[in-house]
Amino acid sequence: MPEPLFEKVALIGIGLIGSSLARVVRREKLAGEVVVSSRSASTLERARQLDLGDRYLLDAAEAVRDADLVLVSVPVGASGAVAAAIAPSLKKGAIVTDVGSTKGSVIAQMQPLLPEHVHFIPGHPIAGTEDSGPDAGFAELFEGRWCILTPLANTDPAALESLTAFWTRCGAMVDTMDPDHHDKVLAIVSHLPHIIAYNIVGTADDLETVTKSEVIKYSASGFRDFTRLAASDPTMWRDVCLNNSEAILEMLARFSEDLAALQRAIRWRDGDKLFDLFTRTRAIRRSIIEAGQDIDVPDFGRHARPASPKP
Amino acid sequence: MPEPLFEKVALIGIGLIGSSLARVVRREKLAGEVVVSSRSASTLERARQLDLGDRYLLDAAEAVRDADLVLVSVPVGASGAVAAAIAPSLKKGAIVTDVGSTKGSVIAQMQPLLPEHVHFIPGHPIAGTEDSGPDAGFAELFEGRWCILTPLANTDPAALESLTAFWTRCGAMVDTMDPDHHDKVLAIVSHLPHIIAYNIVGTADDLETVTKSEVIKYSASGFRDFTRLAASDPTMWRDVCLNNSEAILEMLARFSEDLAALQRAIRWRDGDKLFDLFTRTRAIRRSIIEAGQDIDVPDFGRHARPASPKP
Repeated sequence: MPEPLFEKVALIGIGLIGSSLARVVRREKLAGEVVVSSRSASTLERARQLDLGDRYLLDAAEAVRDADLVLVSVPVGASGAVAAAIAPSLKKGAIVTDVGSTKGSVIAQMQPLLPEHVHFIPGHPIAGTEDSGPDAGFAELFEGRWCILTPLANTDPAALESLTAFWTRCGAMVDTMDPDHHDKVLAIVSHLPHIIAYNIVGTADDLETVTKSEVIKYSASGFRDFTRLAASDPTMWRDVCLNNSEAILEMLARFSEDLAALQRAIRWRDGDKLFDLFTRTRAIRRSIIEAGQDIDVPDFGRHARPASPKP
Repeated sequence: MPEPLFEKVALIGIGLIGSSLARVVRREKLAGEVVVSSRSASTLERARQLDLGDRYLLDAAEAVRDADLVLVSVPVGASGAVAAAIAPSLKKGAIVTDVGSTKGSVIAQMQPLLPEHVHFIPGHPIAGTEDSGPDAGFAELFEGRWCILTPLANTDPAALESLTAFWTRCGAMVDTMDPDHHDKVLAIVSHLPHIIAYNIVGTADDLETVTKSEVIKYSASGFRDFTRLAASDPTMWRDVCLNNSEAILEMLARFSEDLAALQRAIRWRDGDKLFDLFTRTRAIRRSIIEAGQDIDVPDFGRHARPASPKP
């Protein structure tokens, strides 16, 4: 049996990602002890009912005491407050990491507050679902997914190696990247898609000529695909928008420019232009499936399930 | 055993929808004879290999001779040409219908060319996948999905009843609607989502600062959801854009207005506005799942499958 990688792991935040980490840490026996902390008493109580850890503490400072690995899984807007709370009680040599969807802002919030004697290595597992809270997590969430670490200039190679081993044992594949570059990449692959999905669902919700029940009934013609992302955690996504605004605004500007050109092609009946765009986008899906980053069945495999219409 | 609904059914076009119809017609024994027609010799040959019908004809006019039901399943831009080709050989009292995603334009193209002695009832099953061609179809495609019929002012009630019975036996639930209203509804639930998906995939493909391989590797963070719609048939979608441009341009204008407001909220750090939008969109997904129009598992059920990472 493999050794635990860490004596004591502290989980600050126990939502979808935190609780998935708790489950995989336990399943893979990656820690001698798992301490769970949430600032919400009801969330913490739910974590206890789900048996996600060994101890449960409202006080993050208490939770991280003597921890060898501290995993911060909170909305990115709360990163600074968490750093301030845990800084005084962090053990010398502890690894502190996070799972936030933005890295520049998390570093700006946390690094100045954390003591010199800990290893702060920001991270971001590219995994999730549209659900949130401690019930939503599952141990397989990170399997076959990438986890991006954004080490800082002075990051200790041994600490980076430990954290890489940790994520690998969680089932993930690890990449390292410059934080600025991470924020640009995620702006296009994650933040823009979520914002666009929220926006189109909002537009549909506001129409006068088409009723809400029509939107729902006929959603299988395309719209429903967007509603999954648009059902994601509002607090998390508000914080992402506010904490990666520069890269997001840049990507939004490009998207809007391209959309204006497409709109013009529709208005002026430029069928060739439409056909060219609609053809080259096909190849990208094929590449994503070949890279193992989506399932290789039509319609996301929805038809593989027994049909259960509720008309 | 139920009687066949029609003696002879002619399928003009044998792609995703046409071949799904062929399969369900055969499985449910809805026709005495199924005649398949495609203007492409290789597609027709493939249909023959797949055993989709009883006879296979390149000539649509020959195919519809003596047919009681003619199902036109071609890109909407080809509707007029099909109507012109089949008009002279249509049997008196035959029902002619189509499956096109736009109705106003199909009616404008077909109705003037079809003889008075046939029942022309435009239709649109709200079902499909991102795949195309005769191999992509399957008999279960219409199960639990809606099929919208847009009868014209003089439509014979008995013919409408026969066609409704046909779609019901295919597994669909039938609605009737005014063609103009259909085109508005579909512009928001289907056409806009596809155009937005094509556009965002195009934007990502054009970036200089983020490589294509990064977009692919990290696509599980949201982007991959859009690539499914953006892998749909380019000819079909070019034709939809050109044949429902008025309603599409109206929806695009609303979408862009809303996106500009969202962009402004990000730039001016209006967290409350972001949070409000991101909250109300959640309810719509719940309604879609409750209506049986999407599956009730996180992440479209992707995690229910064995993980097979190919890093």
